[in-house]
Order: sequence, then C-alpha cells, then structure tokens
Amino acid sequence: MGAEMADRERVASDLRERIAASPFHSGLGLSVDDADRGRVVLSMQARADQLNLQGLVHGGVLATLADAAMGMAVRTAVEPGRRHVTIELAVRYLRAAQPGSLVGEGRTVKVGSQIAFADATIRDADGALLATASGTYSVTPERG
Amino acid sequence: MGAEMADRERVASDLRERIAASPFHSGLGLSVDDADRGRVVLSMQARADQLNLQGLVHGGVLATLADAAMGMAVRTAVEPGRRHVTIELAVRYLRAAQPGSLVGEGRTVKVGSQIAFADATIRDADGALLATASGTYSVTPERG
Amino acid sequence: MGAEMADRERVASDLRERIAASPFHSGLGLSVDDADRGRVVLSMQARADQLNLQGLVHGGVLATLADAAMGMAVRTAVEPGRRHVTIELAVRYLRAAQPGSLVGEGRTVKVGSQIAFADATIRDADGALLATASGTYSVTPERG
Amino acid sequence: MGAEMADRERVASDLRERIAASPFHSGLGLSVDDADRGRVVLSMQARADQLNLQGLVHGGVLATLADAAMGMAVRTAVEPGRRHVTIELAVRYLRAAQPGSLVGEGRTVKVGSQIAFADATIRDADGALLATASGTYSVTPERG
Repeated sequence: MGAEMADRERVASDLRERIAASPFHSGLGLSVDDADRGRVVLSMQARADQLNLQGLVHGGVLATLADAAMGMAVRTAVEPGRRHVTIELAVRYLRAAQPGSLVGEGRTVKVGSQIAFADATIRDADGALLATASGTYSVTPERG
Repeated sequence: MGAEMADRERVASDLRERIAASPFHSGLGLSVDDADRGRVVLSMQARADQLNLQGLVHGGVLATLADAAMGMAVRTAVEPGRRHVTIELAVRYLRAAQPGSLVGEGRTVKVGSQIAFADATIRDADGALLATASGTYSVTPERG
Repeated sequence: MGAEMADRERVASDLRERIAASPFHSGLGLSVDDADRGRVVLSMQARADQLNLQGLVHGGVLATLADAAMGMAVRTAVEPGRRHVTIELAVRYLRAAQPGSLVGEGRTVKVGSQIAFADATIRDADGALLATASGTYSVTPERG
Repeated sequence: MGAEMADRERVASDLRERIAASPFHSGLGLSVDDADRGRVVLSMQARADQLNLQGLVHGGVLATLADAAMGMAVRTAVEPGRRHVTIELAVRYLRAAQPGSLVGEGRTVKVGSQIAFADATIRDADGALLATASGTYSVTPERG
C-alpha cells in the first residue's frame, strides 16, 4: 500500500472512530464510504422513523447528513488537535427524498486559520441530486 | 372561550395531530407549546442520542427543530388543502447547545401565493439564544 | 445632552466619516438616519442607474444596503481598533423594490471575540418590507 | 458555424442586449465572456468607486456580479417569454478582492417549472477564488 493510500485509510479510519464515539452520528447509521484530505463521502439508509407525514425523508435528516459530511471534510483538512464547530449551515432542497440510500459528499472550499468553508451534495442511490448545502466552520484549538 | 382562543386551540390541535402522524417528528419528542396564525412555538428535550462527540446537541437537531417550527408556522398561515415543502433552510449557530430543553419559535415573514418565508429562533430553558434560522417554503396544493 | 445621547451622536458621526471616506458608500448616497451600539439605520434614494430591465431596483443594490447597515452595526458594537470583514451575506427578496427611498436597518444578533452575526431589513418609504438579510462578520484587529 | 455554436452565439447575444438595456448592468461594465444553456461567464473591471475604506472591492459588488451571472444562467435555461426574479441570494467571501478584473461564472443547478437554483463563483484575473454564491429564482411568465 503506497503512502497516499495509507494516508487515506488513516483518514477514513479516524472518521469511523469518531462516528462510533458520537451517539448522534452512530444512531443515524452513518458509514464512511470514502475519505481524503478535504473530501468525505458518507452514506446512510433512511429509516421509517426519519420520514415525514408524506412518507419522504425529512429535510432535517438531509441537513444533518450534509453537515456531517462537510464537518468531517473540514476535519480531514486541519491538523490534529483542532476542532471544527459549525457556524452556519444552508441547505437547498432540490428533489423529494424517497426512503432508501442517501449519499452525502462534503468538500472543503477553503480552509483558513480560523474559518473553513465547505460544500456538500446529497444524492440518492441512482445518483440523482436531492440537495446541495454549504457550511461555514470555526476551526479552533481542541479543548484540554 | 372566545373565537380567537378557539381558533388558536384548533391550530395547535391540528399541529399536534400532524406531529403524532409523522414518525420523524414524534420520534424527536416535539411538543407544541403555543401556536397562532403565522407563529408556532415547539419544544423538545435533547436526549443523549442527539449529542455529538463533545457532548453538545448536534447542529442537525437544531436545524430540524428550526425547520419544524417554521414549516408549521407556514402551515398555520395558509388555507387547508395546501402543503408546504422546504426549499431552503439556513441556520446560524450562536452558542453551543447543552443537553436539556430546547425551544424553537417559528414565525412567517411573508406568505405569498407560491412561496412563503419564515424565521426561527432556538433558545435554551434560560432563554439564551442558541441559533437563528431562516426558511423558504414552496406552498402548493395538497396532493390527491 | 446626556451621556447616552452624546454616545449615539459620536457613533453616528463616526459612521458618517467612514461613509464619506469610502468611495463605494458615498457613491451610493448612503445617509445615516440613526445609530446606536449594535443598531444602524441607513437610507438612500434608488437612482435610475440602479434599476434593472423591469425598472425595479436591482437586488445587488439591496444586498449592498443590507451589508452596509449590518457591517456598520457590527462596527458600533466592537471596540475601536478592530475591523469587520463580511464572511457571509444572505438576502431574501420579499417584494419588488420600486425606485425611491430605501431604508436599511442593521442589528447585531451576537458579537463574539472573533465572529459577529447581524440581521437586516430593507423597507420602502411606506415601511413595506422589501427584503431581509443576515450577515456573518469576522472581527479582527485593524491592520497597522 | 455548427448549430450548437450558432445557439451559443444567440444566447450570448441576447444577454448582451439585455445588459445594454439595463441601466444597472451596463453601468457596472459587465461583459459576457461566454454563455451556454445554463452557464454564463461575466467579467468586469472593479473601479475606484467600487472600493471600500480598505481599498478592496466592496462585497456588494461581488454579490451583484454573482447574482447577475446566476440570473442570466437561469435565463438561458428557460424558454423565451419567462422572466426570473431573485428570491434568495447567499454569498460567501473567501478572499479579499483587489481592484482589477473580476470574473463571475453562474451555473444552473436545477431549473424547475416554478423555481430555479443556481451557483456562482467569482475569481480574479489569476483565477483565485474570491467568493462563491448560491441563488434561488422564481421563474414566472413575462408580464404583458
């Protein structure tokens, strides 16, 4: 395994540990499909308890998936010992999300010394674009 | 009970039925604290499974509460037989949210024939402002 | 004149000097109608060269007025020697803006040590709400 | 000239006429660098009267350029006889914009029967990313 692949594997493995340690993320059933410096792909299966009255996936679930993918993309792009906090999250809903597989891809747009910007897309299993999102993150030293 | 109070009670009661019928909303533990035409106050208790790695309420939970309060505020302001769909949701995170009580208040800003705009605030039990949000909704005839 | 009024006058006067020193702001014809710590009201007359094809005020003009009102509100709320830089600006357009008087009111929502949040409204001469806006600002030491 | 190139030329030419007919757009000095169905590249030279106190291009100018590029991208993607109105505009400022050439590229993300979504980037002459933007547009029949 080359150095680059080893690095990617380390990045993905760090994210999997974080998901396992976070009750909210593990409860959502998030999987790390792919991860690299500045780019993270997460997937989840939308469950019956994540549907709204119309039987569609609730927008809050898509917002959460987008925030998770972007926040993790930011994390992969900053040095260890820093943490990211969401300052702003904006989601645009393009198509109704049917129950089933959801794939969220987060990418950093710019990572500065204090602020990081990221974008995300949410797609269904067929690759149809369900939502786009943008996030702004404060990047601060990890608390003791 | 005067006509105005009866109307408010009807509005709140319609929302409670909708929450009960929506697996996602009832699973969150949303309560309707107050409701009027164009204004809805919801509350919930943030649970252990809604916390992130730092032990704080995940931003996706706040986004969901804000969207629910705004969407319901829109619903109370349009005639029966129409439904609202979130087009856009933007949330600004002002303070970390500790586990406990969360109160989301949604208000319509403008309700047009096709598009409705709403704003929301999320506060903790002490009234401290945790997040503000804005939402844009498409208002369409309910499907047969 | 009481201490509070003197302070308000000083705040407004500082903003007027800044507008005069900024080619862009003075070119827009911005007036400071009122100013206090964390709240600034600006007005301008939309001119023929600020109209779009339909003869309405271009959305970019409203965005600019909103950003100016919010940025100045942030400025009044931070200590001298710091400057604000817009990180994010979001505007919702509620009604078409006819040529004539535009009044923008900016208010700080939260001013932290590094980030400040503000909201704005834009109204016409009759007080009708034309647009709402939210802004996020980085607050940094003024450059030497 | 093939059919596709002829179509692109017609699209660009329609946009140039519209810019010429709009006092605001022509006053900004907007040029159409490239245009296709759903994608428009505009450029402008930031002038002295578009600078702020620090001598940088004012954020309102970037917001205006982004809105223009996205609105025109939407226009190229809808049939003649419809017009677009900005519902929402959100801009993230990544880097300070020095005076000089600004290039705004707008792309449609989804064009529905009533609502269209677009994204934009603003770059300087060296291609450095200065701002990203997203816009939501109402697409309605042109008024008689």
